[in-house]
Formats: sequence, structure tokens, C-alpha cells
Amino acid sequence: MLIDGRPARAVSVADRGLQYGDGVFETLPISAGVVRHWERHLERLRLGCARLGMACPEDTLLRADLDRLRAGVDHGVLKLIVTRGVGGRGYRPPDPARPTRIFVRYPWRPYPTALYRSGIVVRVCATRLSRNPVLAGIKHLNRLEQVLARHEWADPEVHEGLMLDTGGRVIEGTMTNLFLACAGRLVTPDLSESGVLGIMRGLCIEAAARVGLETEIRAVDLAEMYTAESAFVCNSLVGIWPIRELQGKGKRRYAACDLLARVTAAMGPDAIGGT
Amino acid sequence: MLIDGRPARAVSVADRGLQYGDGVFETLPISAGVVRHWERHLERLRLGCARLGMACPEDTLLRADLDRLRAGVDHGVLKLIVTRGVGGRGYRPPDPARPTRIFVRYPWRPYPTALYRSGIVVRVCATRLSRNPVLAGIKHLNRLEQVLARHEWADPEVHEGLMLDTGGRVIEGTMTNLFLACAGRLVTPDLSESGVLGIMRGLCIEAAARVGLETEIRAVDLAEMYTAESAFVCNSLVGIWPIRELQGKGKRRYAACDLLARVTAAMGPDAIGGT
Repeated sequence: MLIDGRPARAVSVADRGLQYGDGVFETLPISAGVVRHWERHLERLRLGCARLGMACPEDTLLRADLDRLRAGVDHGVLKLIVTRGVGGRGYRPPDPARPTRIFVRYPWRPYPTALYRSGIVVRVCATRLSRNPVLAGIKHLNRLEQVLARHEWADPEVHEGLMLDTGGRVIEGTMTNLFLACAGRLVTPDLSESGVLGIMRGLCIEAAARVGLETEIRAVDLAEMYTAESAFVCNSLVGIWPIRELQGKGKRRYAACDLLARVTAAMGPDAIGGT
Repeated sequence: MLIDGRPARAVSVADRGLQYGDGVFETLPISAGVVRHWERHLERLRLGCARLGMACPEDTLLRADLDRLRAGVDHGVLKLIVTRGVGGRGYRPPDPARPTRIFVRYPWRPYPTALYRSGIVVRVCATRLSRNPVLAGIKHLNRLEQVLARHEWADPEVHEGLMLDTGGRVIEGTMTNLFLACAGRLVTPDLSESGVLGIMRGLCIEAAARVGLETEIRAVDLAEMYTAESAFVCNSLVGIWPIRELQGKGKRRYAACDLLARVTAAMGPDAIGGT
């Protein structure tokens, strides 16, 4: 664990990350000694900082921390948190503010192969995502909605929860983005008002394009989840998990689908994330 | 500063307060050696913890910390943060979770008397509050919207920013609740989808009732801010500040108003908060 480049395990109580969730984060796999897609994560981190009007730590500093934490590690998970730094009382950001950068390395816990082969079970969460274009897309530290959604179930047989926004549109999983195969087309929810623009989501859209599949990015309603032929979720750690079953007002079982198989194949090693 | 009852200045990086803004807070004045309205703040804290599905520290522990921090202090500000505690990676709350309680004492910085007598200048913020009944009302740690709103201006002559929700309704100030005098009636925005149920807001409603004034709690649109006879904001630290001028698409100057003067008078010392 490194805080501002030094080994440490605690942050100041005055840090605005704790006080207000005033910051952004990234979660990345170390796979076969390599931090996958670091440049893309860095780009989103920078975008997040810009959107929050805060400075982003210099690339060289982040890169140095990264190299230190991945040295000699075959598989692992890195979490990077960047906060606006220490401040006084009150919402007003300090000026100048010096961002805090926190890198934590976790051990890699492999996901069961069955989740990739047979797919996962997803429930529809009662907790809704609020809609605000100012915060949509970026991976900021205000994550109470995800926490409350994930708190809704304890059944280990349910692997992910699907979240709708307050307007009833399907947005994403608690920790993943969502893709559907609808009437032979690839669809993923529009995230301009809610949700996180996942790195793996972007890679899926690009991989699909490489095999001649265009992805429709648009509003998705819950009824479509029941009419879709097939669906999968993705994030940087897990790669792609097909959805086997959706548990909502009714149960929906999905069949394997050629369209999603083509995307997964085009993804190559990214389809298995950090595994 | 006390963390879980012990003098400390830093919290674990693994604390969910930092990781997700997973917690609640209270800000209270110490005035003439007394922590004002502690029971009401405690009640809101408990409500917030219950709404987030987390344990609240025992009253006796909080009270012991409080007594330690107010001992020998004439005026000051206390901030209490309660988080869900330390956890592993992922949104799922640990079970069992042991909440972290953090008490910080700040020195009292008196507000200029003119703000109470002549009133304050308020701007209309561009940053909107999202709407989500699950999080509305409680004083949780996901405060990026307030941070972004407060980041919109640096002019020290502007004292507060008015925030609308994403539907265009007037909700509150960045750090205060709002009251209006409209057609001879006292009005305050409904907070069932956005905003914080302020302790001082509750005290104002009760004080108004004591002098025979009922408060309408309802949706307020921005146009009403321009037709209102008068308006004020309030919170536990400042008490009541009349609004002198609203800066939005047009400027609106408010006159002193008998109705608000009656509420202020009925509030007694609460009208001047920690001062």
C-alpha cells in the first residue's frame, strides 16, 4: 500500500475523500505481471479529475507507484484512489489543493471457471441509481447507491445485481456494465445520466466493431431484459460473464448466443479479465 | 480529535468512509460550553445509519467522546462522522461491520453580525442535486454535488449557493435549508427526493408553529424565488440568515418581512446558531 508514494496504511481525517467522497478511483488487474490497459484507466482517471475540477497526480508519479506495486507480482488487483486532498471544514475545495494518491494491492482471487462457461445469476435490485449528468460516467467516490444495492442480497448463488435508474431505465450492474443481444443487435445502456463508463465496456464495443458488429448505445428498459436473446456483464477484473438467469418479477433464462460469442472471441484475453 | 474514542488523526485506507463515502455525519456548535440540540442530531444520525443498514455507535460512547471534546471549551464546532467501518474490496458491506466514529473539534469562527442583520447574497448554482428517495433527507457522506456547487464561485461577497434538483425544483443551499415567505405564508421545499433534513429547519418549523404560523412543505420552483416577499436560509452553525439578494438570471432583492421576523424572534438563541 502506498500513499503519495510512501508505504502507509492510513489517511488524514481531514482528507476530502473521507469527508465528502471527493475523489475518483480505478480498479485494475495485474495479470501475468502486467497491469492491463493502464493507459485507458489513466485516461478515465484524468477525465474524472477534470470533471470534478481537481488536479490529477502526474503520470510519472502514478507510473512509479504502479511499477513498485507490480514488481514480482504475477496476479493481483490494484486499486488507485485519488482524492482532492486535505482540506478544512466546509464543501469549498481548498485552493491550491494537493491531491492524495492511494494505491492498494490486493491478492488475486480467481473466479470460478463456471461463471465464464455457464454464466451468472443476476437479480434486479430495488435500489435505484440517481440521474445527474454532472457525475455520470466517471468513477467517483460517491458510491452509496452501489453499496445499498449490494447490501440487498447475501445469497452466494446470485453473482450480480442489475440497477435501474430512478426513471426505470436499466443502467448497469453494481460493479459491471451490461450488454444485450436484442433482435440480432448488440445493445448497451446509454450512460449519460447515470453509471460508470467502464474500460471493459469500451473494449467490448471496439472488439465488436472489429468483427463487424455495431453496438447500439441507447436507453434500455427492463422489459427488454426479458425479450433479449442473451446478455452479459463485464468489468476490468472479471472480463466478460454471460448472464445465465435474471431474477426479477419473473425469471428469465438466457441461451448461449452466437452474437455474444463473437464479441467474446474478438476480445481475446480481455474476456477473462485478470484471470 | 478522537477516533473510536482515542486521540488519532488518521483512518485506515480500508475504511468504507473513504472507499465509498459509506457513512453519515453531523456538524454541531458548542455554544457557551453546551453542545446545542445534541439529542436531535443523534436522532438524525441514528436514522441515517438505519437507512444505510449500518450499526450506529452506542449513545454512551458518543456521549463520552462529546463530553471529552467540549470540556473547557466555550465556543467551537464539532463534526461527527460515523462510517460503516473497515472492509475488504467490493461494495458488499462486511458482516459483521464495526462502525468507525470520528469526532473532530474545530475552533469557532464567528460570522459577521451584518449577515444576520442585513442578510446574505445567494447565487443560483448550475450544479444540480440528483433525486433519489433512498438517500434523500439523511446527512450521508456522498457530497460531491455540494462540493461541485460550492466550487462554482470564489467571490467572498456571495455567501451561499442555491441548489435546484435535476427536475428544476428549488431544494436548499449548499450547506443550508431554505424558507420563503410567499403570499403571507411560510414555505420550505419538500425534501423527500433530495436534500438534507436540517435540524435547524425542524426548529424553524416548530418555532413558527409556536407563534401560530404553519409551514407549507412542498415543491418550490425557481420562479417562486423571484415572487417571494422574503427568504432565509438556516443551519445549526449559523442559525438564520435572511437573504438580501438572489443572483440568478436576474437579480432579486428581498425586503425585511414581518413573517420571517416572527419566526426568528420565536427561535430565540437558536436564530444565531453557535454564535
